[in-house]
Amino acid sequence: MKPIEWQGNRLKIIDQTQLPGKLVFAELCSYTEVVAAIKEMKVRGAPAIGVAAAYGIALGAQNIKAENKAKFVSQFDRILQSFAAARPTAVNLFRAIDRMKKVAEPTDDFAKIKQALIDEAKAIHANEEDATERLSWLGAELIEDGSTILTHCNAGPLATAGYGTALGVIKAAAEQGKKIEVIATETRPLLQGAHLTAWELMQDNIPVTLITDSMAGYFLSRSKVNCVIVGADRIAANGDTANKIGTYTLAILAKENGVPFYVAAPTSTIDLSLKSGDQIPIEERNPEEVTNIGGIRLAPKGVKAANPAFDITPHKYITAIITEKDIVRKPYLRRLKQLVGR
Amino acid sequence: MKPIEWQGNRLKIIDQTQLPGKLVFAELCSYTEVVAAIKEMKVRGAPAIGVAAAYGIALGAQNIKAENKAKFVSQFDRILQSFAAARPTAVNLFRAIDRMKKVAEPTDDFAKIKQALIDEAKAIHANEEDATERLSWLGAELIEDGSTILTHCNAGPLATAGYGTALGVIKAAAEQGKKIEVIATETRPLLQGAHLTAWELMQDNIPVTLITDSMAGYFLSRSKVNCVIVGADRIAANGDTANKIGTYTLAILAKENGVPFYVAAPTSTIDLSLKSGDQIPIEERNPEEVTNIGGIRLAPKGVKAANPAFDITPHKYITAIITEKDIVRKPYLRRLKQLVGR
Repeated sequence: MKPIEWQGNRLKIIDQTQLPGKLVFAELCSYTEVVAAIKEMKVRGAPAIGVAAAYGIALGAQNIKAENKAKFVSQFDRILQSFAAARPTAVNLFRAIDRMKKVAEPTDDFAKIKQALIDEAKAIHANEEDATERLSWLGAELIEDGSTILTHCNAGPLATAGYGTALGVIKAAAEQGKKIEVIATETRPLLQGAHLTAWELMQDNIPVTLITDSMAGYFLSRSKVNCVIVGADRIAANGDTANKIGTYTLAILAKENGVPFYVAAPTSTIDLSLKSGDQIPIEERNPEEVTNIGGIRLAPKGVKAANPAFDITPHKYITAIITEKDIVRKPYLRRLKQLVGR
Repeated sequence: MKPIEWQGNRLKIIDQTQLPGKLVFAELCSYTEVVAAIKEMKVRGAPAIGVAAAYGIALGAQNIKAENKAKFVSQFDRILQSFAAARPTAVNLFRAIDRMKKVAEPTDDFAKIKQALIDEAKAIHANEEDATERLSWLGAELIEDGSTILTHCNAGPLATAGYGTALGVIKAAAEQGKKIEVIATETRPLLQGAHLTAWELMQDNIPVTLITDSMAGYFLSRSKVNCVIVGADRIAANGDTANKIGTYTLAILAKENGVPFYVAAPTSTIDLSLKSGDQIPIEERNPEEVTNIGGIRLAPKGVKAANPAFDITPHKYITAIITEKDIVRKPYLRRLKQLVGR
C-alpha cells in the first residue's frame, strides 16, 4: 500500500484528509489535480510533497502539445510555477521543481524530455525512499530500549512517500527489537497526529498514546518522555528548522527538561541558500482551519484567528539532525555544507 | 446577565457547554443537579465552582427532612461529600465546602441552619465578586498601554461568577483606557478559549485573535506578546500553581522569551496546606474529550489517549501572583502566608 504511486498516465495517492475514518485513494489525472491535492493537503509532509510534485510535473509535461521548444518551455514553466505556488515552506517541493526543470533543458526532443521527466520523478521518489530508510536506521541507534518517544505532527510513510523520518526512526528502533512507546500530539489545527500518526503507529503495532498539543509539557515535566523526535519542512544552513507549528514549543520544553530533541530529515530538506531560519517563508493558512473542525464551528462567528502552519526551531535547541548520510550535531553549519555538498 | 444566580429555591447558571453557539441558562433545582453541572463543566472555573457548590449545598440543605441533629448532619454530610467528589483540583470547591460545613455546626435549629447556609453561600459569592474586581484593578497596573496579552483557557466572569481573574485584569486595563489586544489559545481539549474567552472578549469589544495552543510559541518568539496572564485552580504555599493543562508550557515559553508570566487569582485559590505543587491532585478526565469534538471522531477507533486536565507551573516561572490583597512576587512562601492569614 504505497502512499504515492505512479501509474503510467496518472498519480495514485492516499487521500490523507480522509484518514483515519476511511482509507481512500485519489487518482490524479492532470497536473492541476496534483497541485490542488498539495494545496488541500490530500498529500502532505515535506518529502511526500516533493515526490508528488515531481510526478505531477511529469504528468503535466506528457500533455504538452507544442510546435517548438519555446512553446514547450513556456507551457512547462507554467506547470512549474503552479507547483511553486502550491505551498511555500517545504523546500523539498522547490528542490523537486529544480531537478525536473534541469532535466527538461538539454534537448529539443519532446518525447525524450517527457520520458526523462518520468524517469527523474521516479528517481526523486527512489531517492526519498532510500534516504528515509537509511536515516531511520541511523537514527534508531540513538534510541534506547524501553524509550518513550514524543513526536509531533506526522512524519511517517504518508509524509515521506518512503519509510518515514521521525516515525521511520521510531519504526526502525522497534524493528531492532527495542521496546518503544510513543506519545503523539494531536497537532492542531489539522490533527495530523490524531489522524495519521496514531493510525500509522497502530498499523505497525507500536503502542501510542494520543495527547493534545497542550499536554506535552505535562508529560515532559514528569519525566515520562526520553526523547522528542520530529520531522522537518526546511532546514537552513545553520541548522534552524522549520516544521509544523508547535515544534518550537516542544524544543523549548525538551531543553527545559533535559530531554534530547532530534530532527529527522533527508538531506533534500536542507536549504543551504538560507543562512538562518528567519529567512524561511512561513505559510499562513485559512483561519477557518482553526475555527472549524469537520464542519463544526468551534468559535464565535466573526472572531479573528491566526493560522501560521509552521514555526522555526533555532538550532541551539536541536540535539542532533538525523539525515541519511550522518547524524549531525552542533555546530551545524560546516557539517551540513559537507553533507549536502557530497 | 449573571453567570450564577441564586433564585431562592433554585440555582440559575449559564450552561457554559452551550457557548458560543447558544446562550442557554440552566435551572438547577436539586443539589445533585448542581453536582452534575460541575462534573459536566456546565459551570467551570475555580471561583465559579466554589460559588456554585456553596449554593448547591444550601439548596440541598433546604430539602433535608430530619428528626434530630444526628440525622440532619448525616444527610448534610452526604451532600458535602457529593460536592467534594465532583472535581479534585480547584481548591475553591473545598474551601466553599469547609465554610458551609462550619456554618451548619453551632446550632440544632434546622430552619436557622438552612437560612445561614443560604446567607453563607451568598457571602462566598459576594467575596469572590469583590475579590476578582479588586485583583483585576490591582493587576491592571502591571499592564502597559498598547500591550498584547496572551491568555489561556477562560478566566473571565463565566469562570469566576465575578469580574474575572486573568480576563478581569485585561478588562480593567481596557477600562483604564489602555489599548489592549488579546491572543487567546483555543485550549484543547474542551476549547474554553475558543468557546468562552473569545466570546467574552468580543462582548467587551476587546480585540482578540484566536490561536491553537501550539501557536503560542510562534507569537512569543516573534515578540508579538508583551505578557502572559492566566488564572489558577490551586496555588500551593510556595507559589506553585495548578491551572488548565498547557499553562506550564506557556510559562516556559514566556521565560525563554523574556516575557512576564502572571497568575491572577483570589486568595481563595491559595492552599497553604500544600507545601508545593507536587501535592496538588490533577484530575484525569475522560479520554473521549481528546478523541472526539462535538460528536466527531478525531482519532482512530481504539487509540489510547490521555487527558490530564491541569498541570503545575513551578513558582520559579511565575513573575507575580495577582491577588485581591496584593501583587505578590518571589519569594512567595512568606508573603502568601501573610495574605491568607489576614
